[in-house]
Amino acid sequence: MLTAQYIGDRTIAINEYSPQDPEPGQVRIRVAYTGLCGTDLHIFHGDMDARVATPLTFGHEMSGTIDTLGLGVKGWSVGDPVTVMPLDWDGTCAACLAGNSHICQNLDFVGIDSPGALQGLWNVSADALVAVPASIDLKAAALVEPVAVAVHDVRRSELAPGDKAVVLGGGPIGVLIACVARRFGGDVVVVELDGKRRAQIEALGFITIDPRATDQNRWVEEWSNGVGADVVFEVSGAAAAVLGATALAKVRGTIVVVAIHPTPREIDLQRVFWRELRILGARVYQRTDFEKAVEMIDEGAIPTDLLITRVAPLSETGAAFEDLEAGRAMKILIDVQAGQEAKA
Amino acid sequence: MLTAQYIGDRTIAINEYSPQDPEPGQVRIRVAYTGLCGTDLHIFHGDMDARVATPLTFGHEMSGTIDTLGLGVKGWSVGDPVTVMPLDWDGTCAACLAGNSHICQNLDFVGIDSPGALQGLWNVSADALVAVPASIDLKAAALVEPVAVAVHDVRRSELAPGDKAVVLGGGPIGVLIACVARRFGGDVVVVELDGKRRAQIEALGFITIDPRATDQNRWVEEWSNGVGADVVFEVSGAAAAVLGATALAKVRGTIVVVAIHPTPREIDLQRVFWRELRILGARVYQRTDFEKAVEMIDEGAIPTDLLITRVAPLSETGAAFEDLEAGRAMKILIDVQAGQEAKA
Repeated sequence: MLTAQYIGDRTIAINEYSPQDPEPGQVRIRVAYTGLCGTDLHIFHGDMDARVATPLTFGHEMSGTIDTLGLGVKGWSVGDPVTVMPLDWDGTCAACLAGNSHICQNLDFVGIDSPGALQGLWNVSADALVAVPASIDLKAAALVEPVAVAVHDVRRSELAPGDKAVVLGGGPIGVLIACVARRFGGDVVVVELDGKRRAQIEALGFITIDPRATDQNRWVEEWSNGVGADVVFEVSGAAAAVLGATALAKVRGTIVVVAIHPTPREIDLQRVFWRELRILGARVYQRTDFEKAVEMIDEGAIPTDLLITRVAPLSETGAAFEDLEAGRAMKILIDVQAGQEAKA
Repeated sequence: MLTAQYIGDRTIAINEYSPQDPEPGQVRIRVAYTGLCGTDLHIFHGDMDARVATPLTFGHEMSGTIDTLGLGVKGWSVGDPVTVMPLDWDGTCAACLAGNSHICQNLDFVGIDSPGALQGLWNVSADALVAVPASIDLKAAALVEPVAVAVHDVRRSELAPGDKAVVLGGGPIGVLIACVARRFGGDVVVVELDGKRRAQIEALGFITIDPRATDQNRWVEEWSNGVGADVVFEVSGAAAAVLGATALAKVRGTIVVVAIHPTPREIDLQRVFWRELRILGARVYQRTDFEKAVEMIDEGAIPTDLLITRVAPLSETGAAFEDLEAGRAMKILIDVQAGQEAKA
């Protein structure tokens, strides 16, 4: 079997390995598709070298079918289509005991801290499985994980039907947040610098703003009849977006910090105080987010076809990262089985 | 009658004026004591010259008795001891319509945007009156307003009994937040640079930390058995305190921004994201906060005697500001009636 591994120094190696039988409580999954995401790109760039052990079989957005059941696994059958919620918590820390196991203080993120889905046959805990209905094709099912991120972010914001939401940053997660917020009844605008991305987002039926061409404060003020946005999602990772976010939110409005900001950012706390704003961090997801994500894909609320730029064979994983890096793609899926049979 | 007015250029003038009859819906209050606060000091420094019209009769922390009832005022009698909630909202903006009239988008803060309590006889809307029971002396009653600020901040934090709370900054509002948080069942520590203030705060039964002598992160980590603080109140106004606040809070912990930060501050958004923290702005108060403040003073939960450094006559208002500025006082009350009779 073949696996795509990050071996350091901006290098992906395609290596052979011998699949193992699943341990008790595990299943072995025949991985169909694995999506590449921003975090994977950070790993590829070496930004997470202090955290990851190489060679790392990465990948955590995936779909597949159950190949083998380990001892004691109940409720699943060989051939079931599944995806995986790639979190492994200790169950004993204060966060877990308070019901926040998704942000366990000792969280193992599968595909970063332990082997991920860029391998033909992958052993995971049966507890991490999420059922995929037969009505969802396996390419779309590989998007369940990023959609679950977006569901978590929107749920955390407590967005209500009719609320006005501003999404700062129209990358894959920003677009998914826009889709989920719309499905939850929100009126959504996406602020994005890149013209090509704006065109893609407009094709999905959203209003977009180019903040260099339009005064976003005045636009949101008019759009909201002088009230301000109910919710602002900061998905850009940019310092300027953070500094500007507080001006967009209404009295007691909410700003959700979704993006990763590696260094401290300036925030207008005078505005936070004056309008009694609420800033919320939002990270990963809970099982309910995965289940909602499956439901939303199944009902067609997520334009998965438009989001998947292309599908590449496992052997071209390295080239796929180059495309992501150059902004030539929204979402690239790796066909993990492509080439496996020839080798087997 | 005499009034203390800010006339610009760091100058307080004691001027004579002719008291007016209250308009319909107003009462005339014989002001007993008016406390000086940080906002008044900002006005004295000229920091708020763009907002205030001079000469400004300022002062918004007060106690007194009703002197005259205007037409149509019901439920109050001459001689009733009262304090005033110094907010006047429009009732029509989006904030008001959403039930947040205390942070009305066109709020008139009485004593800043319209005449305040540093005058012998003061006309205010009867709607702004808050009853003071006879069991509270009028000096203590002048602290109801700042205690209401603290009640609002603690209520906004949703602090629960047994929660660990860190107060960053041990000035008057920080100390009152500590007292209110303790009364709400919290375990409280106060971080304060000034040794004299720390001694005063310790005399009130609180643990204090000198952040230059103690590693506050490690201290809070041990104090909370590795969990982190449930709530952090940022009352210092210092950039370093803001930057450090995120490290103190537990997973899904809350940081309340109480202090005024005139320029944007750096915040560790990586920590906000990682621990799914919540940052809340908190400003002024609602009527329920005033009523709770009266109740807490009446039951002895607020050490008003220890907080009031001294009482000065109206004629010495300027000197009182000099003392506040030099850090020689926690809270100074102005005896507004002192000297009025000699002049009358």
